[in-house]
Amino acid sequence: MSGSSDVHSDVDLAERLARVALNRLAEPGDIRFTRLVADLGARVVYEHLVGGGGDSELRDDVAIRLESLDPAAELDRADRLGLRFVVPGDQEWPEHLDGLLGAGAINARGGVPIGLWVKGPLRLDQLAHAVAIVGARSATSYGSQVSAEIAAGLVRSGRCVISGAAFGIDEAAHRGALSADGPTVAVLACGADRVYPAAHRRLLSWIGEHGLVVSEAPPGGDPLKVRFLARNRLIAALGAGTVVVEAALRSGSLSTAAWTERLGRPVMGVPGPVTTAQSQGVHEWLRLGAAQLVTCAEDVAELVGRAGEALVEDRREPVKPRDRFTVRQRQVLDALPVSRGVGADAISSGAGVGLREVQTTLEGLETRGWARRDEYGWRLAATDGA
Amino acid sequence: MSGSSDVHSDVDLAERLARVALNRLAEPGDIRFTRLVADLGARVVYEHLVGGGGDSELRDDVAIRLESLDPAAELDRADRLGLRFVVPGDQEWPEHLDGLLGAGAINARGGVPIGLWVKGPLRLDQLAHAVAIVGARSATSYGSQVSAEIAAGLVRSGRCVISGAAFGIDEAAHRGALSADGPTVAVLACGADRVYPAAHRRLLSWIGEHGLVVSEAPPGGDPLKVRFLARNRLIAALGAGTVVVEAALRSGSLSTAAWTERLGRPVMGVPGPVTTAQSQGVHEWLRLGAAQLVTCAEDVAELVGRAGEALVEDRREPVKPRDRFTVRQRQVLDALPVSRGVGADAISSGAGVGLREVQTTLEGLETRGWARRDEYGWRLAATDGA
Repeated sequence: MSGSSDVHSDVDLAERLARVALNRLAEPGDIRFTRLVADLGARVVYEHLVGGGGDSELRDDVAIRLESLDPAAELDRADRLGLRFVVPGDQEWPEHLDGLLGAGAINARGGVPIGLWVKGPLRLDQLAHAVAIVGARSATSYGSQVSAEIAAGLVRSGRCVISGAAFGIDEAAHRGALSADGPTVAVLACGADRVYPAAHRRLLSWIGEHGLVVSEAPPGGDPLKVRFLARNRLIAALGAGTVVVEAALRSGSLSTAAWTERLGRPVMGVPGPVTTAQSQGVHEWLRLGAAQLVTCAEDVAELVGRAGEALVEDRREPVKPRDRFTVRQRQVLDALPVSRGVGADAISSGAGVGLREVQTTLEGLETRGWARRDEYGWRLAATDGA
Repeated sequence: MSGSSDVHSDVDLAERLARVALNRLAEPGDIRFTRLVADLGARVVYEHLVGGGGDSELRDDVAIRLESLDPAAELDRADRLGLRFVVPGDQEWPEHLDGLLGAGAINARGGVPIGLWVKGPLRLDQLAHAVAIVGARSATSYGSQVSAEIAAGLVRSGRCVISGAAFGIDEAAHRGALSADGPTVAVLACGADRVYPAAHRRLLSWIGEHGLVVSEAPPGGDPLKVRFLARNRLIAALGAGTVVVEAALRSGSLSTAAWTERLGRPVMGVPGPVTTAQSQGVHEWLRLGAAQLVTCAEDVAELVGRAGEALVEDRREPVKPRDRFTVRQRQVLDALPVSRGVGADAISSGAGVGLREVQTTLEGLETRGWARRDEYGWRLAATDGA
């Protein structure tokens, strides 16, 4: 069977064709269809729709689409376009999409996809540890830079980067992954054979040849605005967590964050200047505790990693020599004049440390090159540069 | 009695003089002294030190300072400098400093101050709702701008701003408060009569005339490095919470944050670009959940406010007209061509919405000016600008 993964699949042809048909009849992620298919199976739902009889809103909605339905021809055509149709039961089917079963609906979109059209050498079932990076189309140069750096860092630690191929943060994430010669997945709202936005023709062509282009929309499908709602749920569900790099308060990328939260996977936010609108949505999620702050790929890996893996150490600067002294030694050090020396009694008074301890400390400081004697008494020999 | 607040005080002269003396004998915030005074009272500790007899590290440490001690003369001298000495029992004593009793020690510094030297018309007991703003001396222009804006916003909402008069974030916080004609408090590591850094002579002079300059160090005291440890604990303890605007990983302002945490008061962090070192310390505190993210004065007021006060609403952008449609109406809208019209059946197929509902919806959209008819069928009449 062409255009499918049935070489490694328990899915029979009738089931696959029913899913191809339903995928074309239903709007991507329409919760009415995904729920029915999950509850009754694809063939029962399909037969109900083609069988006619009785009234239903579902049947009204698909009536005209039914007229031109030819799932076998669709699979053949898709095969010629280099697309394959992956459905539950195929070896390539990513089990972690099942999380969508319990994640409810947003704007009447939700549920496990009926099937996914994919193009490229990567396999969907290799994405369990992939990370989604999403954000503003009108990204700042700062946001694009950070998006690309985090993507490249994730790739270097062996992870795949998922995004939506939009302008701005998405584009930077894909390019960052590619710059590190790593795998990246573009999830589209239009058909996997289409190019949207048009300016990303070469980027999407590259991803289709070296990574994976994924869509829930049927081949040829338009990038209708409502389809981005369903697409964002897939970006969230295909990854182990989602990083939002820049997002204004109403950014669509926050719907990807909302889906990630519903899936119980980590939502991560990269902070930015509080003075740019593009970071306001991220800051709001961080402020409310709905997202966790990340600054680099290591932070991300810690949050999406399996236990014991990729834990970030506390970040510390190197210890300065002065820090190795005790507080009492530092009191003596602080009381030493930088120019003309003074007596140990003046240092004792200045430091508030007893005279005998001052004398012992001064000798120690002298040995280590911090204090020295002149004709008047004790003075500082070196500064610690602070 | 000059140089004191004893007009409104239950503190007798012997107690006050004992505290003036102990304040000069002990290093600011030396936990050995502050604990003893809390446990035994100032007069007992003072008499032990001047009484001599027996050995003790404490007595050794203060031996030379004891020789030149004259607390009555010190009060007189301070009075001439415009300083007053505020001690527990004075009406002006800020009760909320008592939080330091249970906050332990950092680097052998801690506890309730033996007394505070202050200069200026503000009163220490008016600071219960004040907010500390601290951060990097080598601040970026972004950090300074945000520091000043948050300070001005807090002042406009009736709060006082506390900081350390250092270069960078501190300076910007004071200036932001002053720009809004508001009260501000500078807590110094040197004596309240000294100027540190020297470049801030006019700033400190202004604060001393219109706000308050505070120090635990005795008049004339040097700004020794170790004294900043004790000073930072006071900045934290005098305020209701601390905002860290920029701080590198080893910034001293993080010790103010650590004191704030020990006091059980909110530590707040302003995010910035992950690409600047000056925000790394703040991001680390936010990442570990030790600080809460704030972006503006309103966020700060919400966290330090009393219950029910100054709650920030969820930030939302205005709703766009398109968002008022149902998802099904939007499906129809999305399926409308922008140029030459098409029949309702084509729209039904494109939208995946039943023909009758499409027709009703199109008429509704036409009435509201979104759809119109041409000789070929239905098309979009207006764009929603998205």
